[in-house]
Amino acid sequence: MSQHIDLAEFLFRRLYEVGLRAVHGVPGDFNLTALDYIKPAGLDWVGNCNELNAGYAADGYGRIKGIGALITTYGVGELSAINAIAGAYVERSPLVHIVGTPARALQQRGAKLHHSLCNGSPDDYSVFAEMCAKITVAQENLMDASAATYQIDQALITCIQRKRPVYIQLPADMVEAKVPLSALSRPLDTSPSPNDADAEKAAADLIIWRISQAKQPFILVDAGASRYGMAAETNALVQATGFPTATTPFGKGIVDETLPNFHGVYGTVGDHVYVPWVEKCDLVLYIGPFQNNVNTYYFKTIPEPSKTVTLDEDSVVIGSLNNEAQKWLLHPAGVLRQVLAQLDPSMLTQYAEYPDLPNLRAHLDNLAAPQPSDLLTQDTFWRRISKFFEPGDIIMTETGTPSTGGRDFVLPQQTTLVNSGVWLSIGYMLGSSQGVALAQRDLAAEGSRTGRTILFEGDGSFQMTAQELSTIIHKRLDMIIFLINNDGYTIERLVHGKDEVYNDIAPWRYLEAPHCFGAPTDGSYKTTTARASNWGELMQIISNDDFKYGSGLRMVEIMMDRMDAPVILKRLLESYSASAS
Amino acid sequence: MSQHIDLAEFLFRRLYEVGLRAVHGVPGDFNLTALDYIKPAGLDWVGNCNELNAGYAADGYGRIKGIGALITTYGVGELSAINAIAGAYVERSPLVHIVGTPARALQQRGAKLHHSLCNGSPDDYSVFAEMCAKITVAQENLMDASAATYQIDQALITCIQRKRPVYIQLPADMVEAKVPLSALSRPLDTSPSPNDADAEKAAADLIIWRISQAKQPFILVDAGASRYGMAAETNALVQATGFPTATTPFGKGIVDETLPNFHGVYGTVGDHVYVPWVEKCDLVLYIGPFQNNVNTYYFKTIPEPSKTVTLDEDSVVIGSLNNEAQKWLLHPAGVLRQVLAQLDPSMLTQYAEYPDLPNLRAHLDNLAAPQPSDLLTQDTFWRRISKFFEPGDIIMTETGTPSTGGRDFVLPQQTTLVNSGVWLSIGYMLGSSQGVALAQRDLAAEGSRTGRTILFEGDGSFQMTAQELSTIIHKRLDMIIFLINNDGYTIERLVHGKDEVYNDIAPWRYLEAPHCFGAPTDGSYKTTTARASNWGELMQIISNDDFKYGSGLRMVEIMMDRMDAPVILKRLLESYSASAS
Repeated sequence: MSQHIDLAEFLFRRLYEVGLRAVHGVPGDFNLTALDYIKPAGLDWVGNCNELNAGYAADGYGRIKGIGALITTYGVGELSAINAIAGAYVERSPLVHIVGTPARALQQRGAKLHHSLCNGSPDDYSVFAEMCAKITVAQENLMDASAATYQIDQALITCIQRKRPVYIQLPADMVEAKVPLSALSRPLDTSPSPNDADAEKAAADLIIWRISQAKQPFILVDAGASRYGMAAETNALVQATGFPTATTPFGKGIVDETLPNFHGVYGTVGDHVYVPWVEKCDLVLYIGPFQNNVNTYYFKTIPEPSKTVTLDEDSVVIGSLNNEAQKWLLHPAGVLRQVLAQLDPSMLTQYAEYPDLPNLRAHLDNLAAPQPSDLLTQDTFWRRISKFFEPGDIIMTETGTPSTGGRDFVLPQQTTLVNSGVWLSIGYMLGSSQGVALAQRDLAAEGSRTGRTILFEGDGSFQMTAQELSTIIHKRLDMIIFLINNDGYTIERLVHGKDEVYNDIAPWRYLEAPHCFGAPTDGSYKTTTARASNWGELMQIISNDDFKYGSGLRMVEIMMDRMDAPVILKRLLESYSASAS
Repeated sequence: MSQHIDLAEFLFRRLYEVGLRAVHGVPGDFNLTALDYIKPAGLDWVGNCNELNAGYAADGYGRIKGIGALITTYGVGELSAINAIAGAYVERSPLVHIVGTPARALQQRGAKLHHSLCNGSPDDYSVFAEMCAKITVAQENLMDASAATYQIDQALITCIQRKRPVYIQLPADMVEAKVPLSALSRPLDTSPSPNDADAEKAAADLIIWRISQAKQPFILVDAGASRYGMAAETNALVQATGFPTATTPFGKGIVDETLPNFHGVYGTVGDHVYVPWVEKCDLVLYIGPFQNNVNTYYFKTIPEPSKTVTLDEDSVVIGSLNNEAQKWLLHPAGVLRQVLAQLDPSMLTQYAEYPDLPNLRAHLDNLAAPQPSDLLTQDTFWRRISKFFEPGDIIMTETGTPSTGGRDFVLPQQTTLVNSGVWLSIGYMLGSSQGVALAQRDLAAEGSRTGRTILFEGDGSFQMTAQELSTIIHKRLDMIIFLINNDGYTIERLVHGKDEVYNDIAPWRYLEAPHCFGAPTDGSYKTTTARASNWGELMQIISNDDFKYGSGLRMVEIMMDRMDAPVILKRLLESYSASAS
């Protein structure tokens, strides 16, 4: 006799199976009954203040835990989250968006329901799915119990393999639909299909040959190195070759920054520019590219195709990425493993003398200690604060001065940097940090990592999604927040309208936010707030052991001048204005 | 010699011409240069904390002022606002959404820019417009200066005539495109095309005939009465006929509630049910219907078609709305004016004895005064608080217990009720209230109205968009907020999961929010906060003249039990559960 379970149970147990431990979202009348299945499946419920923030949080959770999930209600809920889903799509975050929809019969007769367009047509019930199809890699509408488990499995596999959001519609009357328990007994196989062995070997052989011939090689690591599952192989390659290595802005944090052959973020402006040297290279191994204006310094750091071998999401490309004739369709991690297996120090003879390239760590070590009365200025803040970082930390930099300033960080081993490299939606990082801190806690519970979650956020960004601080408090998460208060949208002031009222924001009393948002005073959760206007004040706050190694929410308001910005950002925006059209 | 102006100047001057005085939005790098044209056009800039809130605020502004406008940046900005745009579409709010997009050449070559999907195709630059096309009634992409003024004019006319959002893309390099100044010299004609005189007369004749024959007539007024420009005519008809009149939940506030023939919100549950009487009526004049489950008590208050004459957006329909053969395509306001011109008391002879229907005002007058120690309970709160209202007030009730409880309000003349009748996106009302309060101020400056803005909002809803309180403060708006603190999503608890953790929210200290969000302490703007747990406390707060007639932000936290809800809501949700599939 076959046993059956409810469809919602299947869905959440499968999510648990692939590593999920928490579901983010907002309750709504079309998803309420599904929420009953979350806790029994071993998952924690995180009720965010609104759906956009829930989407950001689930995205952050997925970036760290390998899978994130968000549940919203039909129409109002899913549309509020759509910007977060689009961000997960372009920045490659594995996010499952479950939408509770009205019962099937209501949809099929085009019932005029609240949260719907009320045009009175069944088409009303496909409109939002059509919108979401543009920014997700799979869409499944669970209208039939006999197909539903297959649909869910395919969606989860696609989500994990492609590291992009998928969209699942769960009608209210399908929550309790019976599906065979046996559908759970087959473990979900999310591993990529193996490469063709001959093609993989040919690609590896060619890369080995190019490596062995290189007189001036360079490795450029972009965010795809981690997104496409080759972060470990990339680090092994950087170590085994000893080749000069840098990252893009979005790729920062993937490569072990303590390696002597690591040379920071490769860019066209700043203290450490070595573009002319790279232009003379005869080989660039370009790993996991995310090519867009911001991540390539306005297309100026894309390596010369004729000298480049690219390891992309599902291909190895010799020369131009657009040249299909030079493209092997291969998962790049397998190819890199082949290369590493064959690589031998004797192959690196062409590459004799290590070039004289800037070393960030030396620069940090040589940086003069600040005087206590020194103001907190963007030109040194980001580099100096690196001394606060420790192995295990997840460091998050919001778009704006933090993400640009954070290019100057000198990171310890085993840290993770979370920034935005494409979508640049301000407000993302605070929401995301809630998910990241929770993922960090879930990983610690599994014994797989421990460390702090440290967020750098601007004031304008903070205002976008500020209420998520209450979720951080409500879920008793451990987090350190450096809030940069520079009195408005400084990055926009630099682009245009320096003193215009449209770049002003309301003057909040930021440090009152934790108490207003419900920080307990009964000792069950610790909240520390402080303000720093100079290095003396800042050092006193952050050198305190309770702040450094304690628990709870620790929030420092860093006062900076409204027109102060990292030199990199100022220069970049000058070049941007020139190339705007 | 022809004079030219910049396209952005044309756009904002046209918006001023049609009554706009404030533009809501969030700055972003693709819209910054356009923002320079706002102030010179005589418009105020309102920088909201995020785009969803800006959309809500612009929607609220438009509902009161007749036109609202929102400017966002490409991708991240417009998608964050999309839920607000969808709400404006289904609830009929005249809202112009301007999106600053990248320069045309960048779009045309599919440049991989931040805020875009980065698929590298020109299609990247049509994706979001395709999404928005589903929830707007006009879409114009200003790619060519020779067509742009015509495109803008058509969009604004459509927006105002149809009371629905339109979408305008303004590429960064088109902001300064030159257009002839003469394009401004033709005033924008947004009046509807006149009805065919013969058809209008025929429809009016038939309505007059039906009125003269009616023995048991009833007028049911829905939100379309105001949306479709016939609020004044509707009130005149209600007065001239003396027919028993009610509104739908969404139509509440349109009819003068001091008229003796006004009988509240027509519904199937509550203290004042007279469905059996309406079912025996021989004529129902159904004005401006918005038919959906919530607004029709789950389709139970839609009048019997064979007895109904409907005045809809652009038609007069005899019998079933679906019967095209009985539909005149006419603007209903003109038809109503014809009816009013012909109507004579002598025609109403069939209708002899006024029926015995509940009178809300009498009920309010008879309601016993509360004892000071009486708790604030949902069953009497909404009716009793009606005594606080005064002519000129705009009263706003957020979805949930406020919107349902507010059906019990007894409104003075010349008040406006803003609620949500279709979209029901919680969080809307606080954002919207910022726009409403500003519109109220702008109208007062023009001498056309004065009154208070009074918001009733639940705690769960407040958390969705709480930061807009800071915009209310920053713009020095006058507002009274009654915040219902019932410890979570009470309406969802009633639907499902009474004690489930997913219906909990974080316990905020709500009354600290104004100070946290920057309320000035220098006397430049007054902020009053107070908490009330019983009628004695509440009366003391609200009977104070400074609270009643003063300025600034006055916020009262109303403590209610977590499972307390208006009886109407409890009963409705019981019937809803039964009809869910």
